[in-house]
Amino acid sequence: MKKHILVTNDDGVTSSGLLALVEEMRSLGKVSVLAPDHNWSGGGHVKTLDRALRVREVRLADGSQAFASDGAPSDCVALAALGYFKEPVDLVVSGINLGANFGHDVTYSGTVTAAMEAVIAGVPGIAVSLDVPYAHIDEIDFCPAARAARLIVQRVLENGLPPEILLNVNVPFLKDEEIRGFRLTRQGLRVYHSRLDERTDPRGRPYYWIGGDAPTGVPERGTDIGALTDGFISVTPLQLDMTAYHALTDLNSWQWQEAAPRPLLRLPAFLMPKA
Amino acid sequence: MKKHILVTNDDGVTSSGLLALVEEMRSLGKVSVLAPDHNWSGGGHVKTLDRALRVREVRLADGSQAFASDGAPSDCVALAALGYFKEPVDLVVSGINLGANFGHDVTYSGTVTAAMEAVIAGVPGIAVSLDVPYAHIDEIDFCPAARAARLIVQRVLENGLPPEILLNVNVPFLKDEEIRGFRLTRQGLRVYHSRLDERTDPRGRPYYWIGGDAPTGVPERGTDIGALTDGFISVTPLQLDMTAYHALTDLNSWQWQEAAPRPLLRLPAFLMPKA
Repeated sequence: MKKHILVTNDDGVTSSGLLALVEEMRSLGKVSVLAPDHNWSGGGHVKTLDRALRVREVRLADGSQAFASDGAPSDCVALAALGYFKEPVDLVVSGINLGANFGHDVTYSGTVTAAMEAVIAGVPGIAVSLDVPYAHIDEIDFCPAARAARLIVQRVLENGLPPEILLNVNVPFLKDEEIRGFRLTRQGLRVYHSRLDERTDPRGRPYYWIGGDAPTGVPERGTDIGALTDGFISVTPLQLDMTAYHALTDLNSWQWQEAAPRPLLRLPAFLMPKA
Repeated sequence: MKKHILVTNDDGVTSSGLLALVEEMRSLGKVSVLAPDHNWSGGGHVKTLDRALRVREVRLADGSQAFASDGAPSDCVALAALGYFKEPVDLVVSGINLGANFGHDVTYSGTVTAAMEAVIAGVPGIAVSLDVPYAHIDEIDFCPAARAARLIVQRVLENGLPPEILLNVNVPFLKDEEIRGFRLTRQGLRVYHSRLDERTDPRGRPYYWIGGDAPTGVPERGTDIGALTDGFISVTPLQLDMTAYHALTDLNSWQWQEAAPRPLLRLPAFLMPKA
C-alpha cells in the first residue's frame, strides 16, 4: 500500500524548497502538503492551544493541491496527525529549509521542530535544510537537496526509525557532482554573533533588534557542521530525551540531602539566605 | 560581589508565580525582571529576528520595577544577555510556571526554552514549574516552589553548572511539610490526549482547535513524572546536544555507501524510485 507522506516546512507553503521536496516525495508515496501560510523561521516548537487554527486550500506553483494553515510548522503536523486528512500519516518530511539548521539551531528551527512533532505523534520525522549562504539567496537550486531527501526517506521507509528519534539532514550548497556523499554526524556547535541594536522610532520611543552578523559554526570533525564544510550531506539522529545523563553523578554530589525530608522548612543554618 | 539574576517566565510578567520567584531570588543577589507582556505557554524556543522588540517598564504587584517585552521568553533572555541591563547577567531563572513541564513538554515550553537560551548565552539557566492540577488553578500558593527554587539556585551559584546544561525543576502541588525532598531525575514520557475539534464559524467556514483532555504522563521510577507522583521535587539536568548517539551504529548499517561518491546521480537500479 502506498505510504502517506506529509510535507511541511517553516518558510511557508509558497517556498520553492517545499515544492522541490514535494516533487521528489511523489515517487515514494501519496503526498499531502500542509504548511504554514507565512514564514515561521526561528519560531520554535509551538503547540497552539489558546486559539483555533484555520486551514485553507491553496495551489503550489505546479498547480497541485496543498493546504496552508495560520499555525506553526509543528501545528501543521499536529493537525495532520490528529486526522485533518482522514487518511493516517505514515511519515513527515519538513523542508527544504532555506539555510542550514545545525548545532543549537535545532530547538529554534520550525523545520526541525516539525519533525519532532511527528516523532511525538508516533511517526518518523525528517527535517531537510539547505546550507545556503546569505549572498546566494536569490539563485537557489533545491534539486540536489530534494534528491538527497528522497534517498533518505526511502531508507527510512525501508528500515524505520527507532522510537523517539528524528533525522536532521543538512545539504551543502553544491552541485550534484560536487556533493561527496552522506555522513552520519553528531550535533555540532553553532556560534551566534547576535548584538543588541537599539533604535528610536519616529515617536521618540526605543525599540530593539536582535542584530549582528549571521551565525557561524565550529567545523569540528564528526559534527553536522564539519560534514557540510567538507562537502558532505550531514544526517544527524536527534532524540527527544534531552536528559544530561553524564551530569547526574556530578549533581548527585551536591548537598541535596540536608534538605530532606522537609527541605523547605529545615534548612541548616549555612544554607539560609543572607539578609 | 552580588550576582545579577534575571527572572523571566512564560505566563507573562503579571503572573504571581513570577513574583513569588522574584521575592526568593532577592536574598541571593541583584534581581532584574524582563518577561513577556502576555502568556506564551507552548510557544517554543523563539528567536525573533524578523521584527523589532519593544520593552516597557512595569510594576509588579509589590510595587517593584520590572520590564515587559512583546517578545517570547527566550527573546527576553536574549535581550538581557545582549546587554539590555548594561550589567552582565550571571544566571537566569524562569518561572514559576503554572503547570508542570516534563517529558516532551521541554521543547514546547517557554519556561524551559528560556533556560535553554541562557545556556546558549553562556550563563546557567534554571526552569521552575509547579505541577498545578487544572482544578486548582485559582487557589495557588507558589511559595513552596519558590523556596525550592531558592535552594537550587543557591546550589548552582556555589557549584556552577557544566557547560551546555540547564536544570528543569518541577515542584509537586503540595504543602511545604508534605514535600518529601529533591530527586535527580531523567526526562519522562508525556502522554498527550489531543483530539482535532472541527467547528464552523458564524460565516459557515471551518476552524480547528487542538482539543482533547489534559496531557498525563508515565510515572516511571527515576523520571521527573515519577518523582512528582511520589511527592518529590524533580531536578532534571537537560543538555542542548540532542544527538541520539545510540542510534548512530544502527543507522550506520544502512546502505549509505551505494550512494557515494556521487549519491544523487549514480543510484543503483534497486534504489531507484518506482514509477
